[in-house]
Formats: sequence, C-alpha cells, structure tokens
Amino acid sequence: MYIGIDLGGTNIAIGLVNKEGKIIATGSTPTLAPRDYKEVVADTAKLSNDLIEEKGLTIADIQGVGIGSPGSIDSKKGVVIAAHNLNWYNAPVVDELKKYFNDIPVAIENDANAAAFGEYVTTASDKDSFLAVTLGTGVGGGIVLNKKIYRGINGMGAELGHLVINEDGVQCSCGTNGCWEAYASVTALINQTKAAIAAHPESTMAKDKKVSGRTSFNAAKAGDPVAKQVVDNYIKHIATGIISLINIFAPEVLVIGGGISNEGDYLLDPIKKYVDECGFFKDVEGTEIRIATLKNDAGIVGAAFASKM
Amino acid sequence: MYIGIDLGGTNIAIGLVNKEGKIIATGSTPTLAPRDYKEVVADTAKLSNDLIEEKGLTIADIQGVGIGSPGSIDSKKGVVIAAHNLNWYNAPVVDELKKYFNDIPVAIENDANAAAFGEYVTTASDKDSFLAVTLGTGVGGGIVLNKKIYRGINGMGAELGHLVINEDGVQCSCGTNGCWEAYASVTALINQTKAAIAAHPESTMAKDKKVSGRTSFNAAKAGDPVAKQVVDNYIKHIATGIISLINIFAPEVLVIGGGISNEGDYLLDPIKKYVDECGFFKDVEGTEIRIATLKNDAGIVGAAFASKM
Repeated sequence: MYIGIDLGGTNIAIGLVNKEGKIIATGSTPTLAPRDYKEVVADTAKLSNDLIEEKGLTIADIQGVGIGSPGSIDSKKGVVIAAHNLNWYNAPVVDELKKYFNDIPVAIENDANAAAFGEYVTTASDKDSFLAVTLGTGVGGGIVLNKKIYRGINGMGAELGHLVINEDGVQCSCGTNGCWEAYASVTALINQTKAAIAAHPESTMAKDKKVSGRTSFNAAKAGDPVAKQVVDNYIKHIATGIISLINIFAPEVLVIGGGISNEGDYLLDPIKKYVDECGFFKDVEGTEIRIATLKNDAGIVGAAFASKM
Repeated sequence: MYIGIDLGGTNIAIGLVNKEGKIIATGSTPTLAPRDYKEVVADTAKLSNDLIEEKGLTIADIQGVGIGSPGSIDSKKGVVIAAHNLNWYNAPVVDELKKYFNDIPVAIENDANAAAFGEYVTTASDKDSFLAVTLGTGVGGGIVLNKKIYRGINGMGAELGHLVINEDGVQCSCGTNGCWEAYASVTALINQTKAAIAAHPESTMAKDKKVSGRTSFNAAKAGDPVAKQVVDNYIKHIATGIISLINIFAPEVLVIGGGISNEGDYLLDPIKKYVDECGFFKDVEGTEIRIATLKNDAGIVGAAFASKM
C-alpha cells in the first residue's frame, strides 16, 4: 500500500493507493496557504495516519509515500525550490515528511508531473514514451520516458503550456507572447467566448449568465454558428500544440486531460484529424492520442507511485 | 577504434574515430542515389577497409561501426524504414553491413540524431539532458537524455524543425503551416532576405548577386538598417523555437549548429537575451546555450559512438 498526496494551493488531497494503482481511501484537509511547510507537512502526516487507521492498517503496511507539489521541485534532494502560491522557497519537504514516516521511501514530484505519471502507470505502463497534456485553468503536462518522469534541469521540465504557438501572439501569464496556454487553456477559451459574444450579441451564448468553458461547446452542439466557430478555433489551437509535441517526441501515447477533456470524442476526433493531416508518420505507425481516464485522481496515484519509481 | 559513417544524399563521409571521439582518418565516396542499399553498403565497407589499411590497422582494431542515415530509422531492428532521398524503404542496412564486419557491433541512427550525439559525446557527456539544433537548409536536431539518443516511436522523434511557431504562418515543406523550419532555416533566411531586397531596393544587400545566408548578416554588420531588421527578425524566429524547447525540456545544455552558427556570438548573444527575458528560471539555474563545435564532423563521430551506446 502507498500514500499519495496531492498538494494544492487550496486543498491537500490524500489517498491510500494499492499496488495496482487503485485508490482505496481518500481524505482532504485545507492547505491554509501561506503557512510554514512544517505545519502543512504535520497536517498531511496526521491525515495520512487517520486514513491508515480508518482502513484497519498500520504504518508497517505502507511501502512508500509520495507528494505532488506545485512549483519547481528538486526531486533528487526532496526540496521544493520555489512554489509561489504556497510561498515556499527551498523547503526540504521530504526530510520533514520522513520525520513522520521513518524508514519508508518518501518522494516528491511536481504536481503536473505526478498527475502525468498517475495516468501513465494506470493506462500506459508498457510504453516507453508517454505525454500527458492538461487543459485546465492553465495548460500543463508531464513527460514519462523509459518508465520515469522526465524532469529536466532543476525540475523545470515539461512546461508544455509554454511552448510558443504564435510568436507575436497574445501575452501569456509567464510574460512570453503566444504561449500555447494563452490559447488552449480553459481561461483562454472563456476569453475567446466572451470576445465572440461581444462581437455577436445575437449568439445564444449571450444568454449564459456566467460564461464557462462549457458555454461555447454546449451552444455549438445546439447548432449556434458563432459558438461553432469559437470551438473550431479553440480546437485548432489545441491541435497546434499537440502537433508540435508529436513532431518533437513522437511518443507512443499522448493523453489529453483537464476539464475540457470531458468533451470526449467531440474534442478528440477533430484533433486527430489535424494531426493526421500534418504530414509525418505517412510511412509508419503514429502516436495514439486519447482522453485521460483518471481525472482528479491522477495526482494522488502518480505521487504514490513516484515513491517506488 | 570505431568507424563512423555519415550517409548523405550526395556523399558518404567515413571516419576512423578513436575512443576520445577524435577523427584520425577520413574518406568519402559518392552516394550515387538512388541505388540499391546493398550497393551503397558495399562501397561503404570498401572505403572503410581502405581507411583501416591506410592507417596500418586491421579489422581486429575496430570495436564498432555506426551509420547515420537520412530518413526514419528503426535503430533496434537496424532498418531504414523510409529515406525518400535515397529511395530506400524497409532496407535492412545493419544486417547488410554486418556481412562485411562480422562480430563487430553495427548501429544505425537517423543522421540528425547521430550529429547531435557526436556533439554530445565530445562536449557534454557528463550531462543528463542535451539538445542540439541545426540551422541548415532545414532545421533539424537531436535529443540526448540519460546518455542515450531519444528516438520516439519508429525513430520519428526529434523533428525539432517542425514545432509550430505560428499556427497560421507560412506553409512548411512538411505541409503544416508555421513550422519553425519555415522561419529559422537558412532557406527561410534567404527568402526573408530576398523579400527585404524587393521591398527596399536601396539596401546594400541588393548588390549581392547571389543571395545567401550570409547576405543579411554581412550587410547588417556593415550598418545596413534593412539588413539589420532582417537579421533581428530572423534571430527572433530562432529564439522562439529555442524558448519552446527550453520550456519543454529544461535541458542542461542546448547547442546551435549548422551554417548559420558560424555567426557565433553575433547570433548567440541576442538569443540568450530572448531566453533570459522569457520568465521561467528566475529561481533556478537555467539551460546553458552554446554554439556547436564539431561542425561537419559531428555526424561521423556520433555514428561511431552510437555503436557503443
């Protein structure tokens, strides 16, 4: 049995995960950021122990503890180098967690990398090259190569949302112009939807009191031509980044997760069509593109399995 | 001692490479494409044996033979899956080479990957993550992770020139719009230079009878404002792709090679400036960006060392 910790800016979600990658118990507690990392780790350890007891287990049943944390992470040293939303800098989180879980392997990974790894270990563990893309508030992702999370220098790797798809495009939150995230995130889709409503007040989308990532998709499916255009353009933005990633990595599998991935084949089919049209892989088998399956559990499972990576 | 073979559409360059990665003898022979792969391999083997004899060595002194080939390569099976310029499809080149070099390890890699590996083994062999970008007729490159060439599915990986930097941009030779190659290759620079001359016939560049990749750089250095604009825009295109690659990989080292890299610091300094401005790596040490050193020898050295990878 493993413990997976998904540390967020608002909540900490913890799961007991069996060796098949199934979550058998979960709990959560507020992060109450910004707080000292030692306080957060203490709460995390307490909640973990509660879960262990709740299932009639003891610490001796736990073979590993993994934590997925926002920010840049030095997984080798077990340190959060910088997590702005937690206000943690050079926080030795693994050493602190070890105080509560002595002799058990404790691992830390970037949260997006942990989520990618969770999807990998449960759905693609026989593959040597795997990419996960998450279309959420931002665009994130993770890279798993040769069964290991790819981290890059100082754990800064796999900022997939910040590949540039329009060099003179709209400014991204990171400061660079034209990042994929500035076009393919849910935040970007909401902005694109609002702009379309302003330009076309006759669109049925104007009736939506609170514009969300679903506004344009729902209206497009109901036949609204303005919404259809918004969705078509948005999907093209997603496909552009995916084409870049496939041309760079030629991964065996690429999964698409995040809230927008709930659109399923309505999203996936046109993306596959764009990729098929893009020229390479005419002579050989290409990348399998699919929708992520684990949803919000991916972070817990991936963190848990990171402790045995 | 190793034999490295750089198989091109026009010429085959072969080198005897010592275990430090130094080329101690070279030879070349025309490819005479399109020809049957067996004929090309026979010529390659003959030239290799000539080099061995020339240096007073015997086949017993050779510990490995590696070949860098254009096209999509299945390195595990030793097969050229498809090399359009050679007209080779599913050609079992390694098995054929082994007929001449029995009991010696024989390896095959994509030529761009081999060149990247050559640069890696001679200048960055202590690093775990390394990218090479080649700005030539096209834009190519290679990825070396954990001391191994990254190949992707079916050897299709690392088509770095085909990451998209402008989703509605100019059409690339691969069919997709806005690929990096369509903006940052020497071919693209020549087109950009010609367009600037047409718009500004007063530019000193108009005196250049045969526009090349050097035309704009030379005129810019001599103070021509139109040329300066061409060079500035071109370098920005290069930097855009490099920023994407760094955000994805956060590699320890990224080297820039190909003809344009002869511009040295005049090219490198503004690229570094763009990368520094792009937001990430504020808290941590970033990627070291430098000019490739091996030039045309990289393919031979990398192919030779691929045989001991």
